[in-house]
Amino acid sequence: MSSTQRETMEQFWEERERLNRIVDEYAGLPMKRFLSLDGQMYRAGALPVKSKELMGLVASLVLRCDDCIAYHLRRCHEEGVTDAEMEESMSVGLIVGGSIVIPHLRRAFDRWKELNDN
Amino acid sequence: MSSTQRETMEQFWEERERLNRIVDEYAGLPMKRFLSLDGQMYRAGALPVKSKELMGLVASLVLRCDDCIAYHLRRCHEEGVTDAEMEESMSVGLIVGGSIVIPHLRRAFDRWKELNDN
Amino acid sequence: MSSTQRETMEQFWEERERLNRIVDEYAGLPMKRFLSLDGQMYRAGALPVKSKELMGLVASLVLRCDDCIAYHLRRCHEEGVTDAEMEESMSVGLIVGGSIVIPHLRRAFDRWKELNDN
Amino acid sequence: MSSTQRETMEQFWEERERLNRIVDEYAGLPMKRFLSLDGQMYRAGALPVKSKELMGLVASLVLRCDDCIAYHLRRCHEEGVTDAEMEESMSVGLIVGGSIVIPHLRRAFDRWKELNDN
Amino acid sequence: MSSTQRETMEQFWEERERLNRIVDEYAGLPMKRFLSLDGQMYRAGALPVKSKELMGLVASLVLRCDDCIAYHLRRCHEEGVTDAEMEESMSVGLIVGGSIVIPHLRRAFDRWKELNDN
Amino acid sequence: MSSTQRETMEQFWEERERLNRIVDEYAGLPMKRFLSLDGQMYRAGALPVKSKELMGLVASLVLRCDDCIAYHLRRCHEEGVTDAEMEESMSVGLIVGGSIVIPHLRRAFDRWKELNDN
Repeated sequence: MSSTQRETMEQFWEERERLNRIVDEYAGLPMKRFLSLDGQMYRAGALPVKSKELMGLVASLVLRCDDCIAYHLRRCHEEGVTDAEMEESMSVGLIVGGSIVIPHLRRAFDRWKELNDN
Repeated sequence: MSSTQRETMEQFWEERERLNRIVDEYAGLPMKRFLSLDGQMYRAGALPVKSKELMGLVASLVLRCDDCIAYHLRRCHEEGVTDAEMEESMSVGLIVGGSIVIPHLRRAFDRWKELNDN
Repeated sequence: MSSTQRETMEQFWEERERLNRIVDEYAGLPMKRFLSLDGQMYRAGALPVKSKELMGLVASLVLRCDDCIAYHLRRCHEEGVTDAEMEESMSVGLIVGGSIVIPHLRRAFDRWKELNDN
Repeated sequence: MSSTQRETMEQFWEERERLNRIVDEYAGLPMKRFLSLDGQMYRAGALPVKSKELMGLVASLVLRCDDCIAYHLRRCHEEGVTDAEMEESMSVGLIVGGSIVIPHLRRAFDRWKELNDN
Repeated sequence: MSSTQRETMEQFWEERERLNRIVDEYAGLPMKRFLSLDGQMYRAGALPVKSKELMGLVASLVLRCDDCIAYHLRRCHEEGVTDAEMEESMSVGLIVGGSIVIPHLRRAFDRWKELNDN
Repeated sequence: MSSTQRETMEQFWEERERLNRIVDEYAGLPMKRFLSLDGQMYRAGALPVKSKELMGLVASLVLRCDDCIAYHLRRCHEEGVTDAEMEESMSVGLIVGGSIVIPHLRRAFDRWKELNDN
């Protein structure tokens, strides 16, 4: 896990799309169904999209996946999540997941600042 | 991990309190501070308590801890979470965490039904 | 995690079905799609069912889920997995997952013996 | 994961030995080598046995395995670990692992009290 | 975790060997025994090497370790695993491990394509 | 997770401090309390700082966090941990955590060698 995550969000997104095209070349029908279902779980229902994206963010933090965190941060930003809402969500993830999540939390705030600055 | 979790929520809570008293006997100041801080993270702020409890629930599901799930289910129920809100939160946890969380998801719905029936 | 898992495989299966009925009461369409997709992933394709069930077993061991292990052991037994094939699969899971999986490995062999004896 | 772990340490140990005999029936040579190597890692060297058992305890707490915790607690008790040494080790595990380890921490203190009382 | 894994398989392998030489400088006998045992677990027995390498691949995916995935992909390729066998194994890992494994799955297909192209 | 971790310890530390300043900009009081408490858990008490740092190292290895490992290695080095003490601690982490920790163990020895060489 590199501590010097300097690629920009834009670069992250381009690489993600390049890799998604490779997955598409190989994926069979059940795998494609999984990837489609992944999107369905975050659609508005009894809970708004914003709440679900924040849940995805907290889950990604406690499971410690930088790419998943970056994805949900971008989606949260699009949904209008405020700095305070983001910080409180990260706090829930921090207490549940412990100090082992701190390196990911640091990189998450770096990403969030980047999203705010653009 | 027993698949025949038949102790009632009330029994779970009594045992939890018995164990908390033992922790209190042994815990030093830093440990007590952690336990206090755990409570502070779920207080209302930019996000309401209900949203934070649902986040705690999803985090507990993907990390696969039955006791943590039972605790947050009870708190969610107290905060007026509806069946649909609970189910959609579990769906986010299920897609993130995968089929390995299904045994915990099953027991969570059993607990939820118990909370609804009382 | 109880170390005295004495419920029989039959009791495990009955409880599993009772809980599945409760999940069915609450589950929305996306959750039901996930549960259906879970079954599709283990169907015969380029790899036979037996190989996929053994993979599910190893994944369940390294992720340390007794219920998932019990499920895949039963399926492996139905597919004619031999004692040696089961033991070698567990050995791969043991070296990858480390000594933390040993309590689950013990209970897995106990379950396997039960399946062999019936 | 049962929150009402009421089996005594003695019952835990007897069940553990029953299961170990079943593992012995099935285990091939590489698996037996792993189990032997597991013991070797905790022998006195540059670090004393006590330090290694405390490390095993902290690792078991952050990985959240009750049986592994019970085993290392018994070994720590045999090695003369004091209440304060045990509590401080659990505190390191708690901050690293987060609130998700609390149910295991509770049961660990219950076990430790049982070891102290006998 | 860098999402722009651009080092080639050859570079990965060279760095792995450089690091292994450093481990050799420091490792005591029990650690060396572990590393030797790691190799023994994947030898042909009741199950062929190919099946064990695919199990190692699925275990590495659900535990989310890119280096371990890269290693097993290379070994699977050497053992003649087909695209369809690889994709079906990844599908089992995906359903068990959930969407949190997707970034690793993406990089795995990128590596596999690289192996196919050389 | 990059296998070619070539940034120096000094670069790692500078980036860590840059990110900590960003966390400080966003963190609310409860998050700041957590970060302060993280430091308190490793202070001398019944156990010396060295023992607690080695526990933090083992916990970081089994939870597989390179940044956390790098941090505790540096602290262990400052506390006068010897090569043999470090190697034996890593051995406990290796047997508990399994072969999935090996990529982190490799990078840890590389870091340790760097600390020794400076």
